[in-house]
Amino acid sequence: MTSPRQIHLGVSMRNPYHIAAWRHPDAPSRAEIDLDNYVQVAQIAERGKFDMAFLADGVGVRAKEHAARHMVAHDIVNFEPLTLLGALSMVTSRIGLIATASTTYNEPYHIARKFASLDHISKGRAGWNLVTSWSEAEALNFGLEQPPEKLGRYDRAAEFVEVVKGLWDSWDEDAFPMDKASGTFFDPSRMHVLDHRGRHFTVRGPLNVPRSPQGRPVIIQAGATDRGREIAAAHADVIYAASQTLAEAQAFYRSVKDRMPKYGRRPEQLAIMPGFSIIVGATEEEAQRKFRVLQDLLDPQVGLMMLYNMVGDFSGYDIDGPVPRLDAAPQVRSEILYGIAEREKLTIRQLYERIAVSRGHHSVVGTPEQVVDEMEAWFTQGGADGFNILPPHLPGGLADVVDMVVPELQRRGLFRKEYEGTTLREHLGVVVAPGERSSQPFQGEVA
Amino acid sequence: MTSPRQIHLGVSMRNPYHIAAWRHPDAPSRAEIDLDNYVQVAQIAERGKFDMAFLADGVGVRAKEHAARHMVAHDIVNFEPLTLLGALSMVTSRIGLIATASTTYNEPYHIARKFASLDHISKGRAGWNLVTSWSEAEALNFGLEQPPEKLGRYDRAAEFVEVVKGLWDSWDEDAFPMDKASGTFFDPSRMHVLDHRGRHFTVRGPLNVPRSPQGRPVIIQAGATDRGREIAAAHADVIYAASQTLAEAQAFYRSVKDRMPKYGRRPEQLAIMPGFSIIVGATEEEAQRKFRVLQDLLDPQVGLMMLYNMVGDFSGYDIDGPVPRLDAAPQVRSEILYGIAEREKLTIRQLYERIAVSRGHHSVVGTPEQVVDEMEAWFTQGGADGFNILPPHLPGGLADVVDMVVPELQRRGLFRKEYEGTTLREHLGVVVAPGERSSQPFQGEVA
Ligand SMILES: Cc1cc2nc3c(=O)[nH]c(=O)nc-3n(C[C@H](O)[C@H](O)[C@H](O)COP(=O)(O)O)c2cc1C
Ligand SMILES: Cc1cc2nc3c(=O)[nH]c(=O)nc-3n(C[C@H](O)[C@H](O)[C@H](O)COP(=O)(O)O)c2cc1C
Repeated sequence: MTSPRQIHLGVSMRNPYHIAAWRHPDAPSRAEIDLDNYVQVAQIAERGKFDMAFLADGVGVRAKEHAARHMVAHDIVNFEPLTLLGALSMVTSRIGLIATASTTYNEPYHIARKFASLDHISKGRAGWNLVTSWSEAEALNFGLEQPPEKLGRYDRAAEFVEVVKGLWDSWDEDAFPMDKASGTFFDPSRMHVLDHRGRHFTVRGPLNVPRSPQGRPVIIQAGATDRGREIAAAHADVIYAASQTLAEAQAFYRSVKDRMPKYGRRPEQLAIMPGFSIIVGATEEEAQRKFRVLQDLLDPQVGLMMLYNMVGDFSGYDIDGPVPRLDAAPQVRSEILYGIAEREKLTIRQLYERIAVSRGHHSVVGTPEQVVDEMEAWFTQGGADGFNILPPHLPGGLADVVDMVVPELQRRGLFRKEYEGTTLREHLGVVVAPGERSSQPFQGEVA
Repeated sequence: MTSPRQIHLGVSMRNPYHIAAWRHPDAPSRAEIDLDNYVQVAQIAERGKFDMAFLADGVGVRAKEHAARHMVAHDIVNFEPLTLLGALSMVTSRIGLIATASTTYNEPYHIARKFASLDHISKGRAGWNLVTSWSEAEALNFGLEQPPEKLGRYDRAAEFVEVVKGLWDSWDEDAFPMDKASGTFFDPSRMHVLDHRGRHFTVRGPLNVPRSPQGRPVIIQAGATDRGREIAAAHADVIYAASQTLAEAQAFYRSVKDRMPKYGRRPEQLAIMPGFSIIVGATEEEAQRKFRVLQDLLDPQVGLMMLYNMVGDFSGYDIDGPVPRLDAAPQVRSEILYGIAEREKLTIRQLYERIAVSRGHHSVVGTPEQVVDEMEAWFTQGGADGFNILPPHLPGGLADVVDMVVPELQRRGLFRKEYEGTTLREHLGVVVAPGERSSQPFQGEVA
């Protein structure tokens, strides 16, 4: 059966949306710490037949003192993602559930166990967004003054993901006969002891969770630089990317897919999904009006704070003057932002206004046709396999996408009308065959 | 309002129950890895107005190779507790939800965050069972050959719990005005930076979760030796204890409560809840018959395996000869088991048959009146403030307790007929007053 290639859709359930979103008259100001809001968002996305709902995360209050009180909630307070997704798995039945977890401040056994557990509890819908963490605020909560330098972080990440995949392969599908008559609970020949001894980790295993419904939970990667791309090419099922333009997206797409063959992987085994901020209206005017409601709520202090977190401290400069290159160490998206400012000749104020809606991701404001024209171009011209939708505010902004954009995608045959499978891997078309084991070298040993 | 002192009830949702439970004709063999089973158990306990449902835990496959395949599921595979309790919080509304987490293999920031999140998600029903972990299997999953020695573990635990409590105090109740009009999301003067610098941990904070509905999640402690009791006296709201006899229970009870005044705490602020294994029938005969069904399913290999995990390796000795003192390093409950064997002059076989139902906890087999007579004696004679019920198998064994024992407790005025509050702290009568902060020294600092 050869069905035409289909777009994959995710939604970011918190951050980044418009940085003034919490002040929007229709948005709950407590969104990040309101269980009911998450329930609504996940259910709206499932109504829209989305592949997955995504939780960005950090393990610290990532705000600086100046203007801190104006910050949006996501960077200040929220819920731990696995606990939250455990809850959301009970009020949804099809949509994939993705949590971000850092390889820098965690142990692989805990991570393997949690995502395997979520995969069981959700009946095959769990995914792990692997990040290496960048902020100083997080380092300070784990006994460090600064995050470890980037290459060291990625070195640890590369070993970390191999251990996790090895632990997920601890048990064969049929390891548990649970035969009451003979008293045979499990079959020791179907248990595999990992016995990993590496540079960063020594982990014996086996994992104390049976092989999970998806075989392995889905792995998402969200780092843009070279080492990040390499890990993604070797291990990821999905990349959550950030590209400003189609040309950038195409270059990124090629660069990652070209690395896959050397790991014995085919390009179709990895879905590249850039963030896409969408503000949609029945007319262009309505869309622009929705946009302006949010822009008008922007406080300059919040704008500077956002730039502080993404690039550095501009508070000593004329807000209506050109964007200077700072001496500060480059932050997560410094280059993207300097690039925009230079290309479009923006002042500091114009720069934060420009990125307030999506913080460096691509954004579209328009009618369903205009939005889908852009998505179709990215999808058919080698820029994307799908999109991680960034609604400007929740849940309303997502409901708009589901009610206006999704039908247009379906009309053009670009997106499913019904879920065909029940697991996230089925939605993504990256099913793990029964008996398939991690390609990573690991010494199986039978107890 | 002075209501008479009431018994508190918890149920252990996995382990220890009768070690042959998975073979019971009415029990699901997959209990530990079956979400529906946990849902049923939690809902039955809530129907019984229990204070809490409890998840024991370990981070490894705690079984040895010989006879491993006969082992019960709990020690082999299960779900990560926080993820699971996130799910159970959505299908229950009153019962407290307790997860075990080790201070030896975790970081305090993660633990503080997860339990605070669960407390929000469950609307005030979260509790943390603090353990220090004892098994070699766990150590091997975290880069160690052996668990750190006990005093070192407790040293770390003592600092760990102070950090966690400090992090839970990061935000005042009214820290988030979220005033859309003025754009004030939070009030920096209501945020407290912990800035802990200790022997084991350096943690800046603040926690990225707002103050939780209970003020602080409930702290349960489950270690029996001196250092464990000391931590409990200083910090715990509940102790999960293991006492074989009323005399033992009384000695333990006094020993812990006597330590509380030096921490400025009153005895009523800590509920001591020994494990109580209950097999109940309408007649004594029926109860004994239920017991024999399980005893007849006991495999000698499983019996030896259980002794191996609790004391040491008896496989080289005559199973029908007396219990020898092994040279092996003492295990978690070695002394309890040697004590039973000596007092009751048991053979190896008789010892494992004797403890198969509750693994060292007290057990009762009888009519509702007989069971409640024992509970009342422990409760009124200074042995217990409540009980952690260990049903012989789940969910059936718990349903028996709820349908037969709970009504008898209620008839005697010893147990609530309805929940009066909605949070676990309200059930336990240990509410944290608004504005009350951890008594531990921590340097508050305003950003
Ligand atoms: C689209 C995207 C989303 C990200 N989401 C998170 C996140 O939720 N939490 C986090 O700690 N880091 C996040 N990161 C940061 C990355 O994991 C990584 O630490 C950082 O980008 C530095 O690596 P790089 O230089 O390879 O991009 C994200 C990065 C990108 C590009
Ligand atoms: C009633 C009881 C329940 C326990 N439950 C657990 C558990 O679920 N997981 C665990 O790792 N340890 C558990 N422990 C072990 C203790 O946390 C502790 O590590 C061990 O008892 C050694 O400390 P101690 O000598 O103070 O008792 C339990 C101990 C007791 C007495």
